[in-house]
Amino acid sequence: MNDMKFDIDAAAPKPSALAMVPFVSVADMMRQVNQAGIDRVLRDLAAYIEADFRRWPEFDKTPRVASHSPEGVIELMPTADAEAYGFKYVNGHPKNMREGFQTVTAFGVLASVATGYPLLLSEMTLLTALRTAATSALAGKYLAPEGAEVMAMIGNGAQCEFQALAFRALTGINRLRLYDIDTEATDKAIRNLAALDFQIARCASTEEAVEGAQVITTCTADKRNATILTDNMVGAGVHINAIGGDCPGKTEIHPDILRRAAIFVEYPEQTRIEGEIQQLDADHPVTELWQVLTGAAAGRSDARQITLFDSVGFAIEDFSALRYVHDRVRAGAPHVLLDMIADPDDPRDLFGMLRRAEGTG
Amino acid sequence: MNDMKFDIDAAAPKPSALAMVPFVSVADMMRQVNQAGIDRVLRDLAAYIEADFRRWPEFDKTPRVASHSPEGVIELMPTADAEAYGFKYVNGHPKNMREGFQTVTAFGVLASVATGYPLLLSEMTLLTALRTAATSALAGKYLAPEGAEVMAMIGNGAQCEFQALAFRALTGINRLRLYDIDTEATDKAIRNLAALDFQIARCASTEEAVEGAQVITTCTADKRNATILTDNMVGAGVHINAIGGDCPGKTEIHPDILRRAAIFVEYPEQTRIEGEIQQLDADHPVTELWQVLTGAAAGRSDARQITLFDSVGFAIEDFSALRYVHDRVRAGAPHVLLDMIADPDDPRDLFGMLRRAEGTG
Repeated sequence: MNDMKFDIDAAAPKPSALAMVPFVSVADMMRQVNQAGIDRVLRDLAAYIEADFRRWPEFDKTPRVASHSPEGVIELMPTADAEAYGFKYVNGHPKNMREGFQTVTAFGVLASVATGYPLLLSEMTLLTALRTAATSALAGKYLAPEGAEVMAMIGNGAQCEFQALAFRALTGINRLRLYDIDTEATDKAIRNLAALDFQIARCASTEEAVEGAQVITTCTADKRNATILTDNMVGAGVHINAIGGDCPGKTEIHPDILRRAAIFVEYPEQTRIEGEIQQLDADHPVTELWQVLTGAAAGRSDARQITLFDSVGFAIEDFSALRYVHDRVRAGAPHVLLDMIADPDDPRDLFGMLRRAEGTG
Repeated sequence: MNDMKFDIDAAAPKPSALAMVPFVSVADMMRQVNQAGIDRVLRDLAAYIEADFRRWPEFDKTPRVASHSPEGVIELMPTADAEAYGFKYVNGHPKNMREGFQTVTAFGVLASVATGYPLLLSEMTLLTALRTAATSALAGKYLAPEGAEVMAMIGNGAQCEFQALAFRALTGINRLRLYDIDTEATDKAIRNLAALDFQIARCASTEEAVEGAQVITTCTADKRNATILTDNMVGAGVHINAIGGDCPGKTEIHPDILRRAAIFVEYPEQTRIEGEIQQLDADHPVTELWQVLTGAAAGRSDARQITLFDSVGFAIEDFSALRYVHDRVRAGAPHVLLDMIADPDDPRDLFGMLRRAEGTG
């Protein structure tokens, strides 16, 4: 740096505050979560999601916009209320892992409905993992049998630890029974979870894992109609938290279990295409989770009922998560400001702004 | 900074190169344009747009996804070919200018279809102004009468200078006749354009402005069915570049002119809703511009024909513009790298990445 350079920069038009958009990077998100404590973040996220689910009819709900290719899908998931608009960009490329890439990456934007200006750009790979777990635990809090202490976790991949922490934070469940066809995935989960004071049993099969569990979380990655849970494995009174079945042709639960269960979903229009219930008739009765939260619909009706949360992930959960991060950023959580949108002094004089910047670069 | 701080940072997991996304800010875009020269940028953009229009059938074309509110609209405009996926976020809030905000702001993302990973995040307020002008001039190059020297410009707002420069760069037109109901807009345009060696006539009315012009560019901002051009103003042989009519209920050209003209459009499905031709029957014949560029359809058939480019702006133009900026960034154009997507060493171990970052913030 020299004085000349300094003078030139000082002469450059500075972007106005209006043009600056807070950006939360992956490193910033990790800092935010580690500073606040992940338990606190999961509880807060669940509270934001619950608050938004309770005012479900206020949202503009549109189907996700998917662009399919032979190797994967890229989706935009928008939603809005009267004040804020949010969207998430998310991809799904099953073959990525073999090539050293992530299967799923995501980022998102929150914007002001009144001005159309972006309010926040955030990484959402980590945030999606957090909000998915918070949503599951929120459903579990309302649907799991009273006094539940043990959770079976079938599939011990990237989502496993987040689910365990969220269930403990919201329902108090501290005993886990883990199984994955890939023993290295279970090794990884046990290594991470043992450091967090869970009581963990490593199991040799799904049958063994579900023994004595009041909650069963299925979170496997196979992109096909798999049958992770068969009818004989699921006894009375269990709550099933079905995470893995989340696109056409990808399911985990045998339809006989679905027919015995009371089924709870986020957004039926989407779940009937993407969720476990794609295996059932299009008019099979389901209950919308938001109505359980408001009290408009019943949750678990008795101790022997099998409840099933057929989770696929909905845009409002991402909206809640972006709203949470935006509030944290306003309270000083780590971020940087990006000069992302042009804001000339005179809105009609975009060209003049460009010209005045000449020689300043 | 102290040694301790340095040690802690050195221990933090660094995002891998895969997780870093180039970001072109407004300041970077201005630097890029001013360094290359705006004429060069407009010509290059037109070449990218022409190349993409010539392979039109290769694109996945979906309608824009709009979220309307009483005060404006927020839209996502996605498109993709076999290699790249692009989308633009753009808002339109007519009341913004009164409150010191821009009416339209935009940003966009280019991503790899093969991996779903973002390749570029870019400001697009300025880029949209550039690509809109480049598209108009490209259409003008194919449709304006031979030897055109004079362009009337009705509406001298933010787009005016970009249109003038793009037409000169692609067609050689150097004489401008300017009119705007707001004389301050014309003052601003003349101030900017006079410094660029245009021959400029300030006109007192639209009638005066169109006198002797072979090209008429209409680019007014009124959000209603206005009649900027009436039938008697438009003589034989003129090319009309109609920019301002770009959403339902917003048009500039009297339908009698449309009925006398050969009409060229970007994407008929969108233009029939948003363009000047919303005033005509749904089956009124139009020609797709891309077919003129490939030679599959005729452009101007004779010197006395009135041609009209009913421009509304289409996602492929944004895709071309993002592709251009991405190529410039790879060649060293100004940008920074953002840690926008998580990329753990072991894709199954997102939680471990979060844990290992603890204490490093």
